[in-house]
Amino acid sequence: MKTYNVAILGATGAVGQEMLNVLEERDFPVNELRLLASKRSVGKEMTFKNQTYTLQEANEHAFAGMDIVLGAVENDVAEKLLPYAVKAGALVIDNSSAYRLDENVPLVVPEVNPEDIKNHNGIIANPNCSTIIALVAINALHEYAGVESIVASTYQAVSGAGNPGQAELETQVQEILEGKEVQPKVFAYQIAYNVIPQIGGFDENGYTSEEMKMQNEGRKILHHDDLKVTCTCVRVPVMRSHSESLTLTFKNDIDVAKAKELLANAKGVKLVDNPQENQYPMPLDSSNQDLVYVGRIRKDLMRDKALTLWCCGDQVRKGAATNAVQIAIEYVKQNA
Amino acid sequence: MKTYNVAILGATGAVGQEMLNVLEERDFPVNELRLLASKRSVGKEMTFKNQTYTLQEANEHAFAGMDIVLGAVENDVAEKLLPYAVKAGALVIDNSSAYRLDENVPLVVPEVNPEDIKNHNGIIANPNCSTIIALVAINALHEYAGVESIVASTYQAVSGAGNPGQAELETQVQEILEGKEVQPKVFAYQIAYNVIPQIGGFDENGYTSEEMKMQNEGRKILHHDDLKVTCTCVRVPVMRSHSESLTLTFKNDIDVAKAKELLANAKGVKLVDNPQENQYPMPLDSSNQDLVYVGRIRKDLMRDKALTLWCCGDQVRKGAATNAVQIAIEYVKQNA
Repeated sequence: MKTYNVAILGATGAVGQEMLNVLEERDFPVNELRLLASKRSVGKEMTFKNQTYTLQEANEHAFAGMDIVLGAVENDVAEKLLPYAVKAGALVIDNSSAYRLDENVPLVVPEVNPEDIKNHNGIIANPNCSTIIALVAINALHEYAGVESIVASTYQAVSGAGNPGQAELETQVQEILEGKEVQPKVFAYQIAYNVIPQIGGFDENGYTSEEMKMQNEGRKILHHDDLKVTCTCVRVPVMRSHSESLTLTFKNDIDVAKAKELLANAKGVKLVDNPQENQYPMPLDSSNQDLVYVGRIRKDLMRDKALTLWCCGDQVRKGAATNAVQIAIEYVKQNA
Repeated sequence: MKTYNVAILGATGAVGQEMLNVLEERDFPVNELRLLASKRSVGKEMTFKNQTYTLQEANEHAFAGMDIVLGAVENDVAEKLLPYAVKAGALVIDNSSAYRLDENVPLVVPEVNPEDIKNHNGIIANPNCSTIIALVAINALHEYAGVESIVASTYQAVSGAGNPGQAELETQVQEILEGKEVQPKVFAYQIAYNVIPQIGGFDENGYTSEEMKMQNEGRKILHHDDLKVTCTCVRVPVMRSHSESLTLTFKNDIDVAKAKELLANAKGVKLVDNPQENQYPMPLDSSNQDLVYVGRIRKDLMRDKALTLWCCGDQVRKGAATNAVQIAIEYVKQNA
């Protein structure tokens, strides 16, 4: 069996750590494993399949001999270092947003557009977490009836800001219990017992960068330039699963029964839709695994050919690390 | 100055307690004050304007001599006892949902339809909390451009389940810190670090009772039988302010600048919309006072004559107690 030399760029972050977990869980055919991080983490150790690996410095020379590089760093570091990985001959699967809208870079959700992988020129981009979760949730409906528009309101976990985001929520809860003053560092405001309707910076149109991603990335992934998305992204005090309220209009008729039938058989989806038994997706339930939970499917009350639904997915896993490893697995399969 | 004999039915609950606070803050012309509660609270004491009042039992004989009865009890108790208050000659302002859609009962948000008060037949109903907050937020836009549809996703505080809801969130946070197992009692599932997409029971159409209220009550309050609302109601781990993401379509043109101008001058509204300074409504900021905060106003990306916005309001106050007392004040003014 062919094996691959794999590097993780940003191995100590929430997404990098989870990429390592998913590579092991999925038994990815790893030959050499190289864990790259910033200078201050060099020398630390991480474990993969019961073996200890020492972290190495991420720099332009770090990619020699690698077949696949999984990127889990911010845009600035991705743009600085990943071109060297490409030059070294590796396939890069990048979780930053730096290359997502580059027309030479495929943007891939394996359940949705695996065929785009073959068009890569050294880099494949991993989409935004909320976008991945929404598209996995609606892809089967789109294939059947053709989605035309989405009104999305998100309930996004603090893990979207990495380990520091999770630590900040825990710290604030503790501070409030002790009667101390809360001092936000990662988020602009207190997130414990609050929700914050801003993720990313504001564009001139009044939408945040995060809100525009669902339309921009959704259009590219679905090859659907006319897709219209009005999105409101909100941070909530939840640890690691994003939830989304989606109202969808379609080109063709689709009813609730058909939607449930499609979603019961959709790749990457767990249908949880039994209101009479109080069963619906919740972020606590969808955490620490890879399926996107979909439920509360009902006819829109405003328009025909329209549905409203609710979905939840683990932001660190399917929203980032798992999707990247799935791209690597699909790439290996396509090139076997 | 004319004074009124006022009773609060359900004085020990979160809403009843807050009604007492708001009566005092607004210096309502109270003559006799009667605080009514269930048998097990009889004899307990509460304070109003530095005077101590002893709780009396809520029963069919408790309303004699009262001019105004503020109802802050569940539907079953409201339906059992409030007809006796009407019979005793009092004006009833009821916070339950029992009478809201009764065609003989006005349903009033004083900033929106104060003129409906005069049509009462003994009972005026206080609308659902999310509906009040949404309608205060959009009323000025509706008067200018005529709202035709609303897609709403809510982020509702635990106070919607009264004092026990707030206590449950605090208890669960503590239990999680201590490594104990969480045992939900008030909510169907753990609410700490989670969100729950169910408030109220499910109708046959897949919507919850809470979700249908915004359409049904909104139509009645706005006298707009064609108003279409698709709503998703979600409980979030926030103490006492509800937030709502609203996407609105209008009959006539309205742009963002005009909407901001209207909302800057709208009754009951505080415009908080300065994205470049990271200023927008948040539930922590809108708690413990009476204004509905509105911001994040932007053009809808799907349709013309459409806007998306975000609003927050204190559920216990403007969503319930304050609105009821405002109705009483408006009633007194109209009958002066």
